[in-house]
Amino acid sequence: MPRLLRKGSQTLGQPPGTMVFVGERKTEKSKITTIDYDDTHFEAKQVGQVEECFPYRDKPTVTWINVDGIHDLEVVERLGSHFGIHPLVLEGIVNTTQRPKTEDFDEYIYLVLKMLSYDESSAGILAEQVSVVLGPNFVISFQEREGDVFESIRERLRSQKGRIRQTGADYLLYSMVDAIVDQYFVILEKFGETIETTEEGLISDPVPERLQAIRSLKQDMIFLRKSVWPLREAVSALERAESKLIKKGTRVYLRDVYDHTIQVIDAIETYRDMLSGMLDVYLSSVSNRMNEVMKVLTIIATIFIPLTFVAGIYGMNFSPEASPFNMPELRWRYGYLACLGVMALVTATMVMYFRRKRWF
Amino acid sequence: MPRLLRKGSQTLGQPPGTMVFVGERKTEKSKITTIDYDDTHFEAKQVGQVEECFPYRDKPTVTWINVDGIHDLEVVERLGSHFGIHPLVLEGIVNTTQRPKTEDFDEYIYLVLKMLSYDESSAGILAEQVSVVLGPNFVISFQEREGDVFESIRERLRSQKGRIRQTGADYLLYSMVDAIVDQYFVILEKFGETIETTEEGLISDPVPERLQAIRSLKQDMIFLRKSVWPLREAVSALERAESKLIKKGTRVYLRDVYDHTIQVIDAIETYRDMLSGMLDVYLSSVSNRMNEVMKVLTIIATIFIPLTFVAGIYGMNFSPEASPFNMPELRWRYGYLACLGVMALVTATMVMYFRRKRWF
Amino acid sequence: MPRLLRKGSQTLGQPPGTMVFVGERKTEKSKITTIDYDDTHFEAKQVGQVEECFPYRDKPTVTWINVDGIHDLEVVERLGSHFGIHPLVLEGIVNTTQRPKTEDFDEYIYLVLKMLSYDESSAGILAEQVSVVLGPNFVISFQEREGDVFESIRERLRSQKGRIRQTGADYLLYSMVDAIVDQYFVILEKFGETIETTEEGLISDPVPERLQAIRSLKQDMIFLRKSVWPLREAVSALERAESKLIKKGTRVYLRDVYDHTIQVIDAIETYRDMLSGMLDVYLSSVSNRMNEVMKVLTIIATIFIPLTFVAGIYGMNFSPEASPFNMPELRWRYGYLACLGVMALVTATMVMYFRRKRWF
Amino acid sequence: MPRLLRKGSQTLGQPPGTMVFVGERKTEKSKITTIDYDDTHFEAKQVGQVEECFPYRDKPTVTWINVDGIHDLEVVERLGSHFGIHPLVLEGIVNTTQRPKTEDFDEYIYLVLKMLSYDESSAGILAEQVSVVLGPNFVISFQEREGDVFESIRERLRSQKGRIRQTGADYLLYSMVDAIVDQYFVILEKFGETIETTEEGLISDPVPERLQAIRSLKQDMIFLRKSVWPLREAVSALERAESKLIKKGTRVYLRDVYDHTIQVIDAIETYRDMLSGMLDVYLSSVSNRMNEVMKVLTIIATIFIPLTFVAGIYGMNFSPEASPFNMPELRWRYGYLACLGVMALVTATMVMYFRRKRWF
Amino acid sequence: MPRLLRKGSQTLGQPPGTMVFVGERKTEKSKITTIDYDDTHFEAKQVGQVEECFPYRDKPTVTWINVDGIHDLEVVERLGSHFGIHPLVLEGIVNTTQRPKTEDFDEYIYLVLKMLSYDESSAGILAEQVSVVLGPNFVISFQEREGDVFESIRERLRSQKGRIRQTGADYLLYSMVDAIVDQYFVILEKFGETIETTEEGLISDPVPERLQAIRSLKQDMIFLRKSVWPLREAVSALERAESKLIKKGTRVYLRDVYDHTIQVIDAIETYRDMLSGMLDVYLSSVSNRMNEVMKVLTIIATIFIPLTFVAGIYGMNFSPEASPFNMPELRWRYGYLACLGVMALVTATMVMYFRRKRWF
Repeated sequence: MPRLLRKGSQTLGQPPGTMVFVGERKTEKSKITTIDYDDTHFEAKQVGQVEECFPYRDKPTVTWINVDGIHDLEVVERLGSHFGIHPLVLEGIVNTTQRPKTEDFDEYIYLVLKMLSYDESSAGILAEQVSVVLGPNFVISFQEREGDVFESIRERLRSQKGRIRQTGADYLLYSMVDAIVDQYFVILEKFGETIETTEEGLISDPVPERLQAIRSLKQDMIFLRKSVWPLREAVSALERAESKLIKKGTRVYLRDVYDHTIQVIDAIETYRDMLSGMLDVYLSSVSNRMNEVMKVLTIIATIFIPLTFVAGIYGMNFSPEASPFNMPELRWRYGYLACLGVMALVTATMVMYFRRKRWF
Repeated sequence: MPRLLRKGSQTLGQPPGTMVFVGERKTEKSKITTIDYDDTHFEAKQVGQVEECFPYRDKPTVTWINVDGIHDLEVVERLGSHFGIHPLVLEGIVNTTQRPKTEDFDEYIYLVLKMLSYDESSAGILAEQVSVVLGPNFVISFQEREGDVFESIRERLRSQKGRIRQTGADYLLYSMVDAIVDQYFVILEKFGETIETTEEGLISDPVPERLQAIRSLKQDMIFLRKSVWPLREAVSALERAESKLIKKGTRVYLRDVYDHTIQVIDAIETYRDMLSGMLDVYLSSVSNRMNEVMKVLTIIATIFIPLTFVAGIYGMNFSPEASPFNMPELRWRYGYLACLGVMALVTATMVMYFRRKRWF
Repeated sequence: MPRLLRKGSQTLGQPPGTMVFVGERKTEKSKITTIDYDDTHFEAKQVGQVEECFPYRDKPTVTWINVDGIHDLEVVERLGSHFGIHPLVLEGIVNTTQRPKTEDFDEYIYLVLKMLSYDESSAGILAEQVSVVLGPNFVISFQEREGDVFESIRERLRSQKGRIRQTGADYLLYSMVDAIVDQYFVILEKFGETIETTEEGLISDPVPERLQAIRSLKQDMIFLRKSVWPLREAVSALERAESKLIKKGTRVYLRDVYDHTIQVIDAIETYRDMLSGMLDVYLSSVSNRMNEVMKVLTIIATIFIPLTFVAGIYGMNFSPEASPFNMPELRWRYGYLACLGVMALVTATMVMYFRRKRWF
Repeated sequence: MPRLLRKGSQTLGQPPGTMVFVGERKTEKSKITTIDYDDTHFEAKQVGQVEECFPYRDKPTVTWINVDGIHDLEVVERLGSHFGIHPLVLEGIVNTTQRPKTEDFDEYIYLVLKMLSYDESSAGILAEQVSVVLGPNFVISFQEREGDVFESIRERLRSQKGRIRQTGADYLLYSMVDAIVDQYFVILEKFGETIETTEEGLISDPVPERLQAIRSLKQDMIFLRKSVWPLREAVSALERAESKLIKKGTRVYLRDVYDHTIQVIDAIETYRDMLSGMLDVYLSSVSNRMNEVMKVLTIIATIFIPLTFVAGIYGMNFSPEASPFNMPELRWRYGYLACLGVMALVTATMVMYFRRKRWF
Repeated sequence: MPRLLRKGSQTLGQPPGTMVFVGERKTEKSKITTIDYDDTHFEAKQVGQVEECFPYRDKPTVTWINVDGIHDLEVVERLGSHFGIHPLVLEGIVNTTQRPKTEDFDEYIYLVLKMLSYDESSAGILAEQVSVVLGPNFVISFQEREGDVFESIRERLRSQKGRIRQTGADYLLYSMVDAIVDQYFVILEKFGETIETTEEGLISDPVPERLQAIRSLKQDMIFLRKSVWPLREAVSALERAESKLIKKGTRVYLRDVYDHTIQVIDAIETYRDMLSGMLDVYLSSVSNRMNEVMKVLTIIATIFIPLTFVAGIYGMNFSPEASPFNMPELRWRYGYLACLGVMALVTATMVMYFRRKRWF
């Protein structure tokens, strides 16, 4: 969870706008790919030098420049300065501890997103920061490492599926946000299954491990919630942005993504409610079992303590020779049987009393 | 509860506006019915082909086109494109995981509603998504399956009861929303009865099953609450919409429906408070019973342990032959009686002590 | 508490504006009284036919028409249509499940209020719905039954006390709202006394009945809170209404009533805090008593169990004939006394240990 | 705490604006003092008749009229009507159950404040209502009894300390509010000390009295909070009032007082957090001690119950004459010693087991 | 924690604007240093007399006047009056109990900040108040003692690193706020480590000290939260200030700091969630251990109590001579062995029962 916070000591005392890579280095070498397209034209390539991207700034076609690996500060810096990006934005791009947000710089819009994925091995969430800069006819995206959720967008661009090739850079940006939000649904589905699995057997077998599992799921929900709330704000800011970079037709789509983020939040809240309920069930089961244990103790003890006392009485050694008043019962013909009978009677009375009290 | 979330994997990677049916298929075949009316004229029929509905778009009379079964994407698509509905709306219509909402597209208003019904067999809530498109002189509604709460509206149209035949499409829309909200009251009444039944005997017989029942009711209330809050917003948005599709006279009625949604929310909150109170009563009853059990143990044990000790004393075998100091009581004339007397005295003292402490 | 919700099934499927009486029928026959007054003139009478009230609409004097008993739909309907009241308002008047609210219809203002009274026999709150319609020179009020809190207003009108006879219909409306809000203070005072009574003896005698009493008071506070919050909004809406029906001079008075509703809310919150505190005290007292019980058990058991063990040792029958090592203590001259001495020592040590631990 | 609510029955049924003294009568006789000053002139006197104050209304100098004791309704009434104060304001002045508030009546501003003081004898808070009316060149203040926190203001006026003599009536009003807010700090300091005292020894000696003390402090904090929140609003309303009675230069000072009220709220919240924490510590200490008690019982019982059983075995009277299989151990040479040895072994094993489990 | 509140008694009754030093005196003597710079020029010196700073007010270069030690009221007063600072601001500067805030006085902006540092020895937070006054071409900062987090700013000024020398006083102010906020990250990292250390071994060894540690960390988080929330507001007010003292280019940077404060708040909330979770784990561990203890008691007692009863039976002294019915078992050939067998059987049955119940 402390992944939220790593800024501190590393950038301390640097002038603002100084780019310092903050985060785990997740890839070896930065890799830059460009996709240039319009209605009739499509070109995708991987470039060796940053400078090869520069001409796209002034071409009328839409260009998507994607950078995988942001620890190579020089690449980011040169790209940024050519496309006129503010030093603070560049500092933000290489700092992976940002919150999702939208910032409107008139000439371009800067968007920070968190791309989540579910890690099967640790049953946990992996988060990767995606920074996107939207210009009039270009989108530059920065990712921490190779591999993303944008493959279907590339496919649609390539095969001219849907209207993506007829539209501008803002629609491309929307498609990216949409792809990231869709991934949240996939993750929530995974968690939904885990929650259902955890719920089964909660009453029948309330071992402490289940408490641990519930708490861990709750933590994950808190983390998701903390990720998706600022995302919701960022998408909302994008939709309402008074920027001419976002065309009216695209706003309808952005409102749709916005609705999706609300649905994600709804689902998270539902899961949190379910987990809270499961916690209550667990605690109540534990307490029920404890009560059961205590009842057994009480019943056994309450029945046998008086019986043992009676047996103790007739184990006393008062001397019959000294006086006929000393324990004459011991010398009765049916003394022993009478004693056992009394014990049986006491037991039966108690059992009936407990039954009536519905203790078992 | 996870019915809130099923979008994820099914629509993943599709371009926006691609219609993918998301939900359970609840009917065999789509069925289209049309009702066309004005002050003097009424005509209701079931159409075989979508195209038969097309002429109604340009007729001055009010037309209500109702589609039962939305898995037949082609029907929805053709209807939608003829009436000029945005692809995103069509995608929403066939996705049954939407939240209630109102969207104003100038030429038409798109409304998503959840029609609830109470399922007697499972004592649970069944939800069905109803999408409504309001145009200048038509209303198109999409339902997941046949059977709805609009029968009384059809009856009023047929028999010219009330002012519905004199008014426009917006009043028809209002009538539909009103019918759906009225259904919420019916469901709440059902729950009210169940809650009252559950409450009885909560103190006298706090078995764990009751806890389960309370929790299940709480979950239902959470579900209802999550359904009705966005509905409230949708109705409010409809009332305040700056659209010329909603006439001034109809707004008064919409405000009335809005008040009804507030009443529903109020009732849900009241039920939640009652259920929370019942939970407290249950837990407190369980704890009271446990305390009672513990008190019985304590009283029995506390009385008999000292008595058993006394009996143990006189069960010791210190040899009277070895010394006159060894347990001379055993050889007293009234030793045994004195011993019993001491025991009775101890018991009486303790009982009085517990009484004074009000332990029983 | 389910009195909040009774609409459902009774009005289901009716066209809006259809008047259906919803509620308990609390009186036999509707009774209409009119009070007509201005600075110099005062006339109060009971009318037999609704039509007798009709002329007052166009007279310059202020008229207060009061209807007790709203189940006679025809009376309400005829009165309403003559005074030009919207069918939806009429539907609301005869439905006693409304929330307090203010609605401004330009020609008149419609106000729903809840008149509360304290029922000594059940120690509960009785609520009665009062609907008021304010026109330019008339006030029409609808009550569920005879008997209200407006007697002092009638007295002031009759005896020309205060400035009520010099002012218009809006001041009369204000006086009615004020009288209803004042009644809330009376009820709160009653509850204040009940709460104080309940608090006494909470620590000394925490029986489960007290828990029940606290919970019941909490429920009452929740009910009051749910009644007064919408009332506060209704009064605020009235004060801020941009209607020429409310004169500037009257707004000062409405602000005063508004302050009173805030005071009521404040008092309710204070009582709720006190009740929550009392609940904590109760639970903590119960737990304290339980701890006390457990301590007694522990002390008795902990002292006697070792003693009984010692007694058990010397009750063993190891044969002295078989060996001199077999329990020689039994044959010592001071064996028995030594044994008793050891027991006394053990007891004293334990008592001292418990004392030092401050267990008693 | 029910001092918040005493309005109810006393003013019931009176026309609004009827002055009814609501509160405890805290002084014998009303006392009126006037201070009249400007830059060069200072005059303070006690007046016998209300009428002596009347000329000050039209003098250009600033006048502060202070009334101690508000139960003499005639005094308030005559003063009010001469200075043109609304009857509702006069009703509010003599009703000591008002919430702090600011009301702007154009010609004057009406301010209700609560002057608190700490009562050493009951360790509680005493509240006194101070109503202030600010006119163009006068301030009229009404207090429940003699004795206030304004002595330093009088001193500054007398000795011309600070700029108070150079400024107008609004600055005098500010000074009064400031003095009252400063008093809150004094009270909070007192509570801070009490809280620290209460905290000490909470773990070492968690007696129920401490719970009582914590709860009482919490109640005080709730009371303070309920007093200071409306005060904050009142000061804020005063600062933002669009009244020409408040000069621009004075607003800076009012903002300063406003900051002080925020600080007071902050401190109250901090104390509440501390008290909640202390409550948790208390409850956890009680539970810790109970656990300790239970552990001692368990250890003693668990060790001695098996030992007593062994002793019980060899206390049985199976007849050695009947068979050599009947308890041959009793006739072994080292039977008794072996038996004791077994007991010692069992004890040692258990002690080691408990040690390993870290039960003591 | 009561450091939030020390104003009360010390400034009581003083006219507003009276400077009274409130706080701990943390340094011997006030020390004034000035840094004067522009693009081409840099001069840093320590001044002996306040008056040496006066000429900087009218020089076109940017000047940073820093005062360490604010208890020397005369220094603050003379500086303040020369630079035209309001007496209330001066009063605030020497009162170290202020909340972070921004106040815009047109000619200058007054900012109160809390500079935090982590004290290794007490593992606590040290807070120091920094007041900053921003004029057109100067920044005056007041600190409680020497030593601050601005060393890197001085270094950047000296070595002309970054753009700080090319920009105005507002950028210097931003740099100071940024440095202070950066320090919060450092502190949060420290706490992050402490929290992780505390979490380890929480389940395995839930001693009460851990509870104490968690609570202390929670208090720290509350303190941090109370510090950073007003800071966030202050930075936001600075960014949105409609003052010409803040240039447009600087606002981007201020928004960046604002984002940092949000991140700090996020991290604090995350830590609070973690600590709450840890508290739950602790309490649940304690309760688990208690349950384990109770189970051992129950099992031991439940097994041995019946066995002891059986042994007690055959320890009774019913006389065989008196009757053959008196305990014939004692005279059976295999009586003893049968008795032991029965005991073994009872034990085995119970163990199996407990096993099936999964009690151990």
